[in-house]
Amino acid sequence: MTKADLGLIGLAVMGQNLALNFTDQGNTVAVYNRTTSVTTDFVAGPGEGHSLIACEDLQTFVSTITRPRPILLMVKAGPVVDTVIDQLLPFLDEGDIIIDGGNSLYTDSQRRVETLADKGILFVGSGVSGGEEGARTGPSIMPGGNENAEKTVMPLLKSVAAVAKDGKPCCEWLGRGGAGHYVKMVHNGIEYGDMQVLSEAYTVMKAMGMSHSEMSDTFTSWDEGVLDSFLVEITADILKTNDDDGSPLVEKILDKAGQKGTGRWTVISAMQVGQPVTLVSEAVSGRILSSKKEERGQAAAILEGPKAMIDRDAISLDDLRDSIYGAKIVSYAQGFMLLEAASQEYDWHLNLGAIAGLWREGCIIRAAFLDDITAAFAAQPDLNSLLLDAGFASQLNAAQQGWRNVVATAVANGIAIPAFASGLSFYDGYRTANGSANMIQAMRDYFGAHTYERVDKPAGEWFHTNWTGTGGSTTSGSYSA
Amino acid sequence: MTKADLGLIGLAVMGQNLALNFTDQGNTVAVYNRTTSVTTDFVAGPGEGHSLIACEDLQTFVSTITRPRPILLMVKAGPVVDTVIDQLLPFLDEGDIIIDGGNSLYTDSQRRVETLADKGILFVGSGVSGGEEGARTGPSIMPGGNENAEKTVMPLLKSVAAVAKDGKPCCEWLGRGGAGHYVKMVHNGIEYGDMQVLSEAYTVMKAMGMSHSEMSDTFTSWDEGVLDSFLVEITADILKTNDDDGSPLVEKILDKAGQKGTGRWTVISAMQVGQPVTLVSEAVSGRILSSKKEERGQAAAILEGPKAMIDRDAISLDDLRDSIYGAKIVSYAQGFMLLEAASQEYDWHLNLGAIAGLWREGCIIRAAFLDDITAAFAAQPDLNSLLLDAGFASQLNAAQQGWRNVVATAVANGIAIPAFASGLSFYDGYRTANGSANMIQAMRDYFGAHTYERVDKPAGEWFHTNWTGTGGSTTSGSYSA
Repeated sequence: MTKADLGLIGLAVMGQNLALNFTDQGNTVAVYNRTTSVTTDFVAGPGEGHSLIACEDLQTFVSTITRPRPILLMVKAGPVVDTVIDQLLPFLDEGDIIIDGGNSLYTDSQRRVETLADKGILFVGSGVSGGEEGARTGPSIMPGGNENAEKTVMPLLKSVAAVAKDGKPCCEWLGRGGAGHYVKMVHNGIEYGDMQVLSEAYTVMKAMGMSHSEMSDTFTSWDEGVLDSFLVEITADILKTNDDDGSPLVEKILDKAGQKGTGRWTVISAMQVGQPVTLVSEAVSGRILSSKKEERGQAAAILEGPKAMIDRDAISLDDLRDSIYGAKIVSYAQGFMLLEAASQEYDWHLNLGAIAGLWREGCIIRAAFLDDITAAFAAQPDLNSLLLDAGFASQLNAAQQGWRNVVATAVANGIAIPAFASGLSFYDGYRTANGSANMIQAMRDYFGAHTYERVDKPAGEWFHTNWTGTGGSTTSGSYSA
Repeated sequence: MTKADLGLIGLAVMGQNLALNFTDQGNTVAVYNRTTSVTTDFVAGPGEGHSLIACEDLQTFVSTITRPRPILLMVKAGPVVDTVIDQLLPFLDEGDIIIDGGNSLYTDSQRRVETLADKGILFVGSGVSGGEEGARTGPSIMPGGNENAEKTVMPLLKSVAAVAKDGKPCCEWLGRGGAGHYVKMVHNGIEYGDMQVLSEAYTVMKAMGMSHSEMSDTFTSWDEGVLDSFLVEITADILKTNDDDGSPLVEKILDKAGQKGTGRWTVISAMQVGQPVTLVSEAVSGRILSSKKEERGQAAAILEGPKAMIDRDAISLDDLRDSIYGAKIVSYAQGFMLLEAASQEYDWHLNLGAIAGLWREGCIIRAAFLDDITAAFAAQPDLNSLLLDAGFASQLNAAQQGWRNVVATAVANGIAIPAFASGLSFYDGYRTANGSANMIQAMRDYFGAHTYERVDKPAGEWFHTNWTGTGGSTTSGSYSA
């Protein structure tokens, strides 16, 4: 009987396509789905002619796989993962490997690595990005977890991963514990930001009175330049797709955006490690706001503002492209700041350049400018921020004027562009050597005796002013039991 | 021997002032501090003539208090609270009450309520806001926790609380578990937003070339109108306070803002319950960015933008006032949305009107317009959002044009105003019946088969388009094991 090189559990769209991708690379894949008819339909349908072994129960499934058994779970993130692991455990042998390819929370993966290690099972938490098409033809894969699994899983995962222009597979071992799923989480957070920025550009174009075909052509032309990316390409596709009645399909879609958690987790983690990811944050809040459709309808009737129309001469399409690109650079810079802070917090030793490298192809945020990010980190591994890289600085300097024009014009005309605006405020705040936080420190010392540092004294020397003349000299520093 | 009506542990600035406040209300207070000299100095110094009982050890301290013993902890939030509780436990009797008056995380308070209830001790987590002066003369107090403590602690806490103009004390029993500290957390989050907004107004004024005395006079005049509030008042004070050399002290203060956690916790909770608190979020990120002082210095040298100067005629001071007020209304609306969502999530039955009521006096965010918020919720207890209240809508309608002008002008002139800009984008997004999230849904369906609802079909009916012509009909909905 033929043995399988790996097993795959969960035959929804990502699971099916990954299974086919593995067989294309010469692997035999044992497949299992809770509902057997899904398995049967798959092997008789899209899987026909592929080296798949359909299994109806987990015991057979496990016994079919060559040891140490690599078993890829493509099931819904959350408790289902634990349930499936518990169902698998009785049939596994020491050294077998469970790879969770779903969008699991990195702390769950961390926990699973630890609890399964106690049982002799090697757990790998691996982000997989690329959507249905990427899974089929080569996704970006972000594994991390039990280091003893690295040697076995990496050749397998690399074989199905996308390949960058320089020939490198878009799959790197990222680190211990939850490192793989953490990197995937940040990827998804950045994806939220990118999608928000593109939807804002679409809104501005509509306010400019552009037709959907003009919009589509514009995105297509941008896909040739610095914005060359999968999401720009599909935006162009979407804008030229018509509904059955011949009108643009996108206008028939309800403006309530769903989300599954990775964006919110990115913001939560950023708050925990103390990094600003304002682009992602605005994108997540934008989706939440979009879901308040009924309230927005009520608000539209009573809250006033200019009519959302922009004169075609007020902004150029180059300005709009610059806004997208400027916001993207800020967002990626914030994302990499977060990765670096998390790497230090959790002792992961993340290689930022390698991460940029594996996002170049296969994943949803794949884009030409990730080559530049990869190069920037390769040249300066200790770069504090992408915004301090000479190349990106020069691109931002070229983009900032048009970006300003778009934000100012949209704001004046009542158009919500939270990510464009927030990104630009971050850019301006970042390049402000002397900001306004001195006022915040003065207030904190005024009402809470929190003390402050001075510009004319060494850092670490703290001062308190008795602002009112009535407060005492007791500072909050002595606030202890 | 005189018995104490309550005990207080922790004699930093808040603890000392609260102890004096309790004695002013006719209470005898047993006081204890880990370092005995602090206790000694306090009773011999600021506490002289007050009915205080200085205790050098916890056993004496506890035995001095009338049963059931109310013991107020004013110690550093975090593990110290658990340490002090553990030290106290051997001396306590069933029914004794521990009140934590620090800025504890609400989930810690929830846990302490539960674990102490098992031991017969009643735990109350109580936010106290007002800073050093409020603690002395009447803070806003936000208690919640073990309901069996309510009858004993409320008269005590109400006696020292601030009193609103209608005669009501700014202290209400908020609910079970961590409800009190949750409300205090959101209060602090809103405080972050207010401080950020005022510091942005200060930055804009500086760019307009106003002198510090002009700025101070402007804030003083605003303190007479809709912006009438403690933070506006102290901003005016700060701006007229000079350093020893006669120049404005605020300019000598380093622009690196500290933070202690409540702002970040607010954002984290908002992400967990799925509410947008963009104002708080930008304020927290603004403080984080301020702390990257060295990076900002490097960035200032290479990232370009307009010189941060605004023509005096470009915006009026009324525009600036409108920006502050508009941003504040949005921020409070977001804060109350969060409270309502958390109330449902944790089954707290929070009374939003009562919460607004107890923020009217005593606390850092005390402001005249909290009377309007109290009234709005009193008139419409089911109000989904303050932005939908007719009174606030009309004020926003009056403010939005000036607010737009300030944001557009600041953006055009390279000045970072993240909270002004984010608040306005939220306002515009909220009043947009048909937004841009249809594009986001189209993308999600394109790359991930996430499906979408249609504007011309009933809610809950989901559609998938095979955008590329090559994808299958399998949707992510079948993504399960």
